[in-house]
Formats: sequence, C-alpha cells, structure tokens
Amino acid sequence: MSDIIGTAVSLDDLPLREDLRGRSPYGAPQLQVPVALNTNENPFPPPAALVDDVATATREAAASLHRYPDRDHVALRTALAEYLTRATGVPLATENLWAANGSNEVLQQLLQAFGGPGRLALGFEPSYSMHPILAAGTRTDWLPAPRRDDFSLDAAAAVDVVRERRPDLLFVTTPNNPTGQSIDLDELATIADAAPGIVVVDEAYVEFSSGPSACELLETHGHKLVVSRTMSKAFAFAGGRLGYLAAAPAVVDALMLVRLPYHLSALTQAAALAALRHADETLALVDTLSKERDRIAAGLDSMGYRVVPSTANFLLYGGFPRRFADAHAAWQAYLDEGVLIRDVGIPGHLRVTVGTPEENDRFLEVSAALR
Amino acid sequence: MSDIIGTAVSLDDLPLREDLRGRSPYGAPQLQVPVALNTNENPFPPPAALVDDVATATREAAASLHRYPDRDHVALRTALAEYLTRATGVPLATENLWAANGSNEVLQQLLQAFGGPGRLALGFEPSYSMHPILAAGTRTDWLPAPRRDDFSLDAAAAVDVVRERRPDLLFVTTPNNPTGQSIDLDELATIADAAPGIVVVDEAYVEFSSGPSACELLETHGHKLVVSRTMSKAFAFAGGRLGYLAAAPAVVDALMLVRLPYHLSALTQAAALAALRHADETLALVDTLSKERDRIAAGLDSMGYRVVPSTANFLLYGGFPRRFADAHAAWQAYLDEGVLIRDVGIPGHLRVTVGTPEENDRFLEVSAALR
Repeated sequence: MSDIIGTAVSLDDLPLREDLRGRSPYGAPQLQVPVALNTNENPFPPPAALVDDVATATREAAASLHRYPDRDHVALRTALAEYLTRATGVPLATENLWAANGSNEVLQQLLQAFGGPGRLALGFEPSYSMHPILAAGTRTDWLPAPRRDDFSLDAAAAVDVVRERRPDLLFVTTPNNPTGQSIDLDELATIADAAPGIVVVDEAYVEFSSGPSACELLETHGHKLVVSRTMSKAFAFAGGRLGYLAAAPAVVDALMLVRLPYHLSALTQAAALAALRHADETLALVDTLSKERDRIAAGLDSMGYRVVPSTANFLLYGGFPRRFADAHAAWQAYLDEGVLIRDVGIPGHLRVTVGTPEENDRFLEVSAALR
Repeated sequence: MSDIIGTAVSLDDLPLREDLRGRSPYGAPQLQVPVALNTNENPFPPPAALVDDVATATREAAASLHRYPDRDHVALRTALAEYLTRATGVPLATENLWAANGSNEVLQQLLQAFGGPGRLALGFEPSYSMHPILAAGTRTDWLPAPRRDDFSLDAAAAVDVVRERRPDLLFVTTPNNPTGQSIDLDELATIADAAPGIVVVDEAYVEFSSGPSACELLETHGHKLVVSRTMSKAFAFAGGRLGYLAAAPAVVDALMLVRLPYHLSALTQAAALAALRHADETLALVDTLSKERDRIAAGLDSMGYRVVPSTANFLLYGGFPRRFADAHAAWQAYLDEGVLIRDVGIPGHLRVTVGTPEENDRFLEVSAALR
C-alpha cells in the first residue's frame, strides 16, 4: 500500500462525524464458496427469456445513454402498479408507486422525508438490521422494541409501546427478517391505528408467504401506511437493485422532495421493466422454494435443531450442539464445509437461505454431520 | 385522480419534516422539444461500438441478476483509477477511487460522513444548485459565499471567508456550473490550505477545460482534498448514472460507513466498465464541443449579448433585449421557438448547453431573432 497516494492519512485523521467513529461497514462477507446461503437471494438464475429481454432492453437504452433518464420513472411505476394490482387484488395506479435503487434507498428516502434529527423511528427486534442503520444515517433516533421470546410479534404489546413512545416512523417487517414470521392484517391494522406517524410495512419477502399484502390496508390507512417491497428476492433481481413502495400519491410527492434527481438509471428502468414482463415465469419458482423451505425445516427438526416457523425464503434455527461455543463457531463450522450461512447476531441462532435442492441437500448433510 | 387509492390524502396531511414544507422537487423540466440544450448533456449519442459493448456486458451481467453485485465494485474502481491516472498523470490506485449512482450520491455520502447536524458546508455561489440541496437533505448547515460580480472566484476573499467561518466541508466547483470559469491549481491549493475540514472539488466538467485536474493536489492535500467527477457529461453516460471520486483511501473507508449496501447495480458496474473501455472514442468529441462552445460564444457576442467566459460545455450569457421583462421571459421566448435552455435563477442570465453543430445553429438563429 505504501506507493498509494494518501495512505499516510488514516480514518482517525479525518473529521468524521463522531457517531460514525469506531463503526464497521454493514454487509455480509462476500466470499467465494461452493454453497452460498447467506443473503436471501433467489438461487435460480433468471430464465433465458428474461436474460434475452433484459439484454434487448438495455441495448435499446444504451443508444440514448448520453441523455438523462426519466427522472420520475413513469413507465416503470406503471408496470409496478400493474404487477402489484395483479398480485394483491388492490387496484393501484402509477401515482401510488415509487421506486429506487433497492428498498434500502426507498427506506432512506422515507426517513429523510419523515424522520431526521429530533424524530423517532421504532422497530420490533430482531428484525432487518438495516432499519436502525438507515435511521442513524439520517440522524433519526431509533428505538428497538421487543418481540416475544419465540420472535413472533405481540400486537397488544406493540400497540402499548407505540402509544407510549409515539414514533414518527414505525417499521413492521412481515414476513420478518431474520425470523420468518408474518403478522395478520387485522393485527397490523390495530398497530397502525395506534401509530401517530408513518407506518412502513417492509414486505421484502411477502411473495414467499401465502398471506395477504398490507396493500389491502392502503384504502383505509393511506394517510399513514406505506408498503415497501423489493425485486431482490422472489424476482431474482438482487443484482439489478430495484426496490419500490405503494402508498398514497402524497407520500410519493414527499419522496420527490428528498430523492436525488435522476436516481434511477436508464438501464435500471429498462432492465426492471423487462424483468416485470417475466414476472409469472420468475415467480413460478417461489412455490418450489417454499416447498424446499418446508423440507429443510422438517430435516433440521428431525435432527434435533430448533427451527423458527418461516413464511419467507430463509429459516432461523438454533439448538447447536454443545461443542460449538456459540452461534459464530457453528457458522464457522459450516463455512469450513463450504456452506456459507448467516450469523445475524441472535445468540444461539443462525439463518439459512433456501437454495436449490442440491444446495439444500448439502446444507442438511453438513447440519447432520455437525450435530 | 378520484379513483386512485389515497388521493384524499394531501401532502399537508402527512407528518413531513417542517423544513421540507412548501419546497418543490429539484429538477429541470423534462420537455419534448426539437432542441434540448438545458441539462449539460453530451449531445452526441454513444458510438455504436460502445453501445455494442454495453449490450454484451449487460447481457452477461443479466445472467447473474439473482445474485447481489460486488458491494465494493472493485473492478469498476480499478478501471476508473486507470482512466484517471491516464487523464491526469497522477498515479491513482483502486483504493483511491469510489463510485455511486451519479456524483449527487457521491456528494451525499460525503455530507453524511463529514457533515450532518451541527456541521457547516460552504460554497461559492452561484454554483451547482444541488450542493445546498444535498446539504439540506443531510441536515448540514449551508453557507453561501459570494463570487466576484463577473462570477469568477476571488481566492483571497475565499481564504478570508473560509478562515472566518471554518466550514466542515468546503465545495469548490471547477469549472463552475452554471458560470463556466475554472480556478488555477495554485489558488485552489491556497484555499484548501485555509480550510479546516474536507475540501470537495467538483470537477463534473473538467474534461471540457484545458486546465489540470485537482487530482494533482492529492499527494500534498490528501488529508482533506476530495475530487468528485461524473461520467454524465464528457463521457456521454448521463443515463447510466455514474459519479466517482478520487481521494485518500481513508476517505473511501469513511464512505463505506454511510453508503447503502450494494448501492451500485451489477448492470451499472458492467455498463460503466464498458463505457470506460471506449473512453478515447467518447472523449474525442470533447474537442468538437469545446470548439462549438467557442463558436457559440463568438456568435452571441457579435449579436450584442454578454457572454461569461466558459471552460465547460455550456455558456452563461445575458444582455437580453428590454422587451423581455426578465430572464424567465427570454427563456420562454426560446422555448416558444422549440429551443429549451436553462433559467438557473441568476437575474438577467440564461445558460445554454453546447449541442450538436445543427442544434447550436438553431440556438444562434433564435438568439439573433430575439435580439
């Protein structure tokens, strides 16, 4: 490194914000391993017809790359509205939709518009670990509220804490990452009724559950409810980075005040439109993954592991044998066998993403050997 | 709109942050007109070989879209380092480079890491109007400092205001948008020496100037200096959304603490790499554009308009005839003739982007008619 310009400067020499000092960047290790089951990706590559369509669409977009893209990505929002209407039965319009580079950017924009210094966001932990990080990034105070010991959400307790702490933004993740459970719409409505501010329902994994979408509540709760989604999981589009939300049009107006102009590239818009044209084909594999999830759960259970019931494309499980000092040692033992899963920081538990049948076989094989 | 879910909710009904109330979204009008010279794009479409290469690269990337992209975009940073080393003569390494979705996102990340509540950013106005908007979006205080009446930067006055106000971040745009002038490296170094915090040199238009890059100062000023660049202008890649910076590796470490994970899609990384492979071809047109700029300037001057000397791909000019009440009326008069230029809010002035020779002819024709 000594020849590299500026290496004499260390992070401590820079006028970094005090609240960032000592922190580590977020992110799972990006390791090359035979079986990667750590980031809840869809293990099935995009079908050939989708790849062709993406290639054709991006080639067409490439011819105009010297021009800025449609800032308001209207065609893409229209296609997302059509997909969501079909998927949820709720008639949504272009004006109800908004997209960004991954749902992280959607959530960051929500925090920029409705959070920030002097405002409070609340979530029920353990949950998606980016929520508090995004809150910190926008200087929004973060209050973690507990789930039950079995990681399910206690709606009555949730209502109590929301009434007491009155968060400006409330995050409800359903199915919840990394635990896998969903919450009933009735209970969600009750919690939302108690919320004084914006209620963000993070449905990143909803396609893997058989339950209804919180979009059904938009008609009654559109003055506060926002449903966030992603194409990274069921849509097998993690590399394309496309998150979106459904909400009242006024929420979209609010996000336009904080979004970076031209935040969605012409290539992203073209590729996401192409992927949406193949939604039926891609989502057909969701059923396979749900069945594989249930097969892994049964396999782990029969080996004596404790498995948290999941409605997503991953499983949280524990009950590791005593010879592993902790979850991290168990994680390392899997990695030593070429199987990369996720240590999400919950004592005694690890999270495994549902992979292809072959990958899941290997995961179960290693799990059996490690008992 | 009445059938659309949630339209009964207005922006005023939502718990928007107080400092956002009454604001309008940033952005030039995206109008369909015969001659669009309003957003400083490169008017020449990407060459066919570049389009082919982007298409091939994105097709290849599309096959793995179910996987998250390389979070640290190492291959792209390496290619950017190679380009910048070639272009500036300063030996830069992968570790010195960082990219994001447009230079706006790069600048936002800098403000998140080094600005924020209780911190101050300072810029010399008129300049790029996104700087104060990005500061506001990260709750960084913004102090506008003046330029000379002819819009050039007075280095001695700059040093004085920097010494007095001690900004945590100092923005210097060179060539300056929307006025076009560059600042000498000696003067820039003097200003940077006076700065107590981070100095962001925004070189979005530097390829159009014949002057040296502030990258030459990184060896001596790497503890504070950051050079921000974009592929939107000279690279004819506005639709691809790729901004980047060169700095000490520790600055890159700081940005990793605030960047959204996987912020750069696999398609963006692949397409930008392809565009960089064709840098020589694309940048060859910069010379044509610089000559066209000088031709437009001479033309406007001969008609009696007042033109600010420019080292970029745009011109700020004024001296509109009295029958136009103000710059906005002049802007509208151009638009009525199918020529879209930019009212940047400077009394008595408009900004025109250098277009193709035919577009520039039409602009000059309308300018002559409007005298």
